[in-house]
Amino acid sequence: MTPGIGLPPRSELLDGRLVAKELKEEVRHELDELRASGHECGLATVMVGDDYSAAAYERRLRRLADALEIRYRHYWLAAETSHDEVARVVHQLNADPSVHGILLLRPLPVHVPEPQLFSQLDPCKDIEALHPENAGLLALGTPRFLPSTPASVFHILDRWLDESGQDRDRFYKGATIVVVGRSNNVGKPTLALGHARGAVVISCDEWASRSGHLAEFTLRADVLVVAAGVPDLISAEHVSDGAVLIDVGINPVTDSNTGRVRLVGDIDLPAVLHLARAATPVPGGVGPVTDVWLMKNCVAAARQAN
Amino acid sequence: MTPGIGLPPRSELLDGRLVAKELKEEVRHELDELRASGHECGLATVMVGDDYSAAAYERRLRRLADALEIRYRHYWLAAETSHDEVARVVHQLNADPSVHGILLLRPLPVHVPEPQLFSQLDPCKDIEALHPENAGLLALGTPRFLPSTPASVFHILDRWLDESGQDRDRFYKGATIVVVGRSNNVGKPTLALGHARGAVVISCDEWASRSGHLAEFTLRADVLVVAAGVPDLISAEHVSDGAVLIDVGINPVTDSNTGRVRLVGDIDLPAVLHLARAATPVPGGVGPVTDVWLMKNCVAAARQAN
Repeated sequence: MTPGIGLPPRSELLDGRLVAKELKEEVRHELDELRASGHECGLATVMVGDDYSAAAYERRLRRLADALEIRYRHYWLAAETSHDEVARVVHQLNADPSVHGILLLRPLPVHVPEPQLFSQLDPCKDIEALHPENAGLLALGTPRFLPSTPASVFHILDRWLDESGQDRDRFYKGATIVVVGRSNNVGKPTLALGHARGAVVISCDEWASRSGHLAEFTLRADVLVVAAGVPDLISAEHVSDGAVLIDVGINPVTDSNTGRVRLVGDIDLPAVLHLARAATPVPGGVGPVTDVWLMKNCVAAARQAN
Repeated sequence: MTPGIGLPPRSELLDGRLVAKELKEEVRHELDELRASGHECGLATVMVGDDYSAAAYERRLRRLADALEIRYRHYWLAAETSHDEVARVVHQLNADPSVHGILLLRPLPVHVPEPQLFSQLDPCKDIEALHPENAGLLALGTPRFLPSTPASVFHILDRWLDESGQDRDRFYKGATIVVVGRSNNVGKPTLALGHARGAVVISCDEWASRSGHLAEFTLRADVLVVAAGVPDLISAEHVSDGAVLIDVGINPVTDSNTGRVRLVGDIDLPAVLHLARAATPVPGGVGPVTDVWLMKNCVAAARQAN
């Protein structure tokens, strides 16, 4: 990338909470329009068992839905609930016209295979785009919903480009986007969205990391998106001068002194921030935007349903 | 990659016709098993208009289906046939229990949008995996059908590794696979299959080519797969010593002297063969294997239907 007029100063910390706040106002406006046309928006979440991160995510979504006056329902099922019983709840929600978006909180217990359960969702209510039809529409370049985490990654990037006076199209077509991690909900769709913007995309996985080859690829990144679920995986040796760093990792780590759980990302930010043009922190980076994007998808689902 | 015992000599030309011949015997065996259980296999192709390459492809498939005694039907529709009329043919074939695989030959006329027509296919008869559900299952790592061209690319690679005594798993997990071109039927699913094997995958498009940046990425390839549809795009400056080259391009080029049409690939093979460990020619490389893989998918569809 050629430095030019209007570029931001080095080491800009990208404030996900601020981006989320603005996006929330946008969603509120979309909701106003929906209500003006006589319709409501309903979100249902389903949780099976007692995962720490899933429970924290559910509490955040509940608060956000309340704040936006989205009709929110939560179904909690014990960890030992059978697959058939969980599927029955999904089918009830599919059939319920007051529910427009359904979120199955993960992880699910091992006896409830995720792919099978996601394929039971009504694709039009699958606001995380994990039903095969929605994953396929995204892969083919014609998405029904953008999965919230990858969409938030690019929303933060787009907004940063706009604010710093850089042309989006020119930036992405000249950029190499390196994605570490290959999950179905984050890594793979992030590649698809990078594709759609015309960037060169490089996808690495844990193996490149374990075998010590990760830096070979991450050092080529103009934009480095890390979604590996490994605390502090990315350190100074992995980051080129001037890269933009987007940390998707949210890892609960227990402090050995206090015994308290805190959330850390996949990037050792204090070690690399001086190298970066811009970077998202954890917490307060991608996470808050993701939550709002899910509401945005739910509103879109409600709009499409009517 | 570390050179070792059992590696092939430099510059091995990978004979796609031989691979296709062996795969054909495998498919013949699968057909024998299907018939032994009292079932048949039927393939239908649909062509709209008079594209040169599509017509050549149809003739090859017809001959191959005849040789394998697969029940073959071809529907030819004039270029001006309406979208509704083409969709009606697709729906008839969906409903016909003697048809197990349906191939819509491309390109389609502009008034018949490909995504809309592919989404009309019964996913269980969509042997090119272009229905959103099939594209999604592939993207999510649980494919119903492997699209024939990417599957053939990896079949040729797998067979080369086996024959030269290299361990598949070790090779792929240490390999960087660079894919030039991002089509829905070749580029994108090739990335997905590279993912599934644990390789680092790099995806470049025409823009990297037009802006002169292509070599930056292709030079990193242990395996370079080119599916850009640009005759002789890849020359010596793009190829590292010891790379494996897979050419998916099939470009009809008219000889200015004789006026005859011949097929050339995306790789200028005479210019780069001395650099490569192994390479596929055009014609006689990926193409013949692709044809047989389509029959393999059709047999799988017939097996699943029964």
